[in-house]
Amino acid sequence: MKNENKLLTLINKFKQIGKTPENGVTRPVYAEDWTKAQLEYAAEATDLGLFVSVDEMGNVYAATTDQLDQTPVILTGSHMDTVINGGALDGTYGDLASLVAVSDLKVQLGQPQTPLVAISFSEEEGSRFDATFTGSRFLTNQAEPTTESLLDANQVDFATARKAAVAKLLTDYPKQGPITVQQYLELHIEQGPVLEHKNLEVGVVTGIVGQRRALITVHGETNHAGTTPMNMRKDALRSTIKLITSIQDLLDQHPEVRYTIGQLNLEPNISNVIPGKVVFSLDMRSVDQTKLDQLFQDVTELVVQTKAELVPTTNVKATLMDENLQTAISDVTDELDLSSIKMVSGAGHDAQIMSYRVPTGMIFVPSINGISHAPQEASTDTSLLNGLNVLEKTLAKLSY
Amino acid sequence: MKNENKLLTLINKFKQIGKTPENGVTRPVYAEDWTKAQLEYAAEATDLGLFVSVDEMGNVYAATTDQLDQTPVILTGSHMDTVINGGALDGTYGDLASLVAVSDLKVQLGQPQTPLVAISFSEEEGSRFDATFTGSRFLTNQAEPTTESLLDANQVDFATARKAAVAKLLTDYPKQGPITVQQYLELHIEQGPVLEHKNLEVGVVTGIVGQRRALITVHGETNHAGTTPMNMRKDALRSTIKLITSIQDLLDQHPEVRYTIGQLNLEPNISNVIPGKVVFSLDMRSVDQTKLDQLFQDVTELVVQTKAELVPTTNVKATLMDENLQTAISDVTDELDLSSIKMVSGAGHDAQIMSYRVPTGMIFVPSINGISHAPQEASTDTSLLNGLNVLEKTLAKLSY
Repeated sequence: MKNENKLLTLINKFKQIGKTPENGVTRPVYAEDWTKAQLEYAAEATDLGLFVSVDEMGNVYAATTDQLDQTPVILTGSHMDTVINGGALDGTYGDLASLVAVSDLKVQLGQPQTPLVAISFSEEEGSRFDATFTGSRFLTNQAEPTTESLLDANQVDFATARKAAVAKLLTDYPKQGPITVQQYLELHIEQGPVLEHKNLEVGVVTGIVGQRRALITVHGETNHAGTTPMNMRKDALRSTIKLITSIQDLLDQHPEVRYTIGQLNLEPNISNVIPGKVVFSLDMRSVDQTKLDQLFQDVTELVVQTKAELVPTTNVKATLMDENLQTAISDVTDELDLSSIKMVSGAGHDAQIMSYRVPTGMIFVPSINGISHAPQEASTDTSLLNGLNVLEKTLAKLSY
Repeated sequence: MKNENKLLTLINKFKQIGKTPENGVTRPVYAEDWTKAQLEYAAEATDLGLFVSVDEMGNVYAATTDQLDQTPVILTGSHMDTVINGGALDGTYGDLASLVAVSDLKVQLGQPQTPLVAISFSEEEGSRFDATFTGSRFLTNQAEPTTESLLDANQVDFATARKAAVAKLLTDYPKQGPITVQQYLELHIEQGPVLEHKNLEVGVVTGIVGQRRALITVHGETNHAGTTPMNMRKDALRSTIKLITSIQDLLDQHPEVRYTIGQLNLEPNISNVIPGKVVFSLDMRSVDQTKLDQLFQDVTELVVQTKAELVPTTNVKATLMDENLQTAISDVTDELDLSSIKMVSGAGHDAQIMSYRVPTGMIFVPSINGISHAPQEASTDTSLLNGLNVLEKTLAKLSY
């Protein structure tokens, strides 16, 4: 690979765009730093001899042809937005590696049979508006109509923010209409501890978990901690502890489902007042969608039996990666003599949305200490370059 | 009692001073509405023919004599400050009833043998600064030297706020030096459900619980809810649920101790992130100080065994009310044909601080639905007047 240094240089460059005092990155969709990053991506793509265009959602395309609406294309990329004070690699790594891989292939091998397109998706994290994957949803006609009117923390609506930011991109680059995607490939850090723990170099993703989330509310009665006898209390936290223990007893029997109670809030949350209300989140994930739905239903019944309330929130279906693409990626890891494992992605990715419509493959490289969504998010340079090599060689197999 | 209407009129009047949109009362110590209320108390006391003075903490005295530093006095009262959006009766009821009782006795029976002094303590709730009972602590030389430098939410220090507010009171009223208290009596709403539940008219307080509080911190490891396998997690909430269950199992065997976990905070408290840290409060109360200390120690050991941390916070000793005063109050309830019960106070009061230094008695009247520290805090007019009558007749027995 000629452009290995280029990738590491770009990662360092983009780490500065939206850099936080804690050495993290904050680049929510359509914010000033997001616009700066997408413009920089477009400028780099142009320098590398690729054709740049921008769609109305703010996805930036860097293609081996300026006629990419004429034939099906092979698409590869990730997203440019980050969570608040996130790391330098989630999204950005796959974004930049795709750009380098496509330009590298064009330089080395000339025009591909099937056009190659690197894409920098506008948004995946849902960290500014309460909507995720809006870039890949738009590309594949899976956008939610309600997204446009969502408000951010400053009461700015999605449509207004989107139009203002995208207008800045369209000043310099042509507007991209719909394209036909033949296959989609995404390279990403694992964001978990498995590859590092098993001392393996590459993960070939077999599927992405389905996610079901809910908010559970337990009611009690707020009262004075000193003056209310124990037997006259309706302590919402006491009921919550019992309910969570029952949920744990149920779900711990099914290790194929990962679940997390990550958020829990008491009201009024004062040390000398008996809690009158507790609201907590439940996040359940599995590649086995049938099992996931069944257990979600079992939890719902458990909650209702205890007179608590459950409101379902996120519901994302489990999906499988394309078998041919899994084989292509595995073949490349063998050719490159890289150790690899077939594994499930426990996190959502643009690849999940893409896979509902087109054959999709996904490549993981190890995360250091499994950390992501934090300034400490990192991989070794070797891992980052391994990923680039696997992506590039797989694209070569598909396009030439 | 001649002044029954006077009490209800005064309660309504003071309810307007610091009234909130929710029909509650917010009157933190030394705030503008607090100053207004203490001035109004002083003006009413003067109208009722009592001698008013003010000490440097902002306690307001309304006495049957202007020579109250000459001989021991019988003191009665409560506090003028409230919690944020509290009720119209906590503190204020005993404050105003004491004023009415003392003036009533002077009008009806003339000068008492032992001077009677109604006191409106400056502060009891700790709702502006992180210090409680500062009025009665000052009176009895139990003030904490660190209080003066405490900051409120706006970074104003206690000393500055105190001096500014008290200066306004001292413009119109003489400064009061130390006094000698022979006995202290306090009338208060129960703030709990016991009297109402048992359908009784008066509570004769036998003691006030000791309080031991702590903050307990459980450590885990923040990680991604989707990518971290169940067996590689250090979930701080899971550990917390286990620890709280152990604490419950221990303390539920000792019904003589009331305990409450009222505050519990997760970090980072995000639905798709495994909790890295949980901090929760534990509030334990009992009149049996030995038992309370023993169980607090047992909980501490339990926490340390699980590698969590416990930091003790509040530690207020249990105290007993004076037996002679309990008898005097009970005799009066019998004479008035009011049903009564001897009971423990689960909440702290100025009477607790006073009792460490002088013989102290305390009278409770029923709270409606046991509610306090909220706009809905209420008692029936009959209950409020029963309390006034019991206080007044008890004071008459002691002073004449």
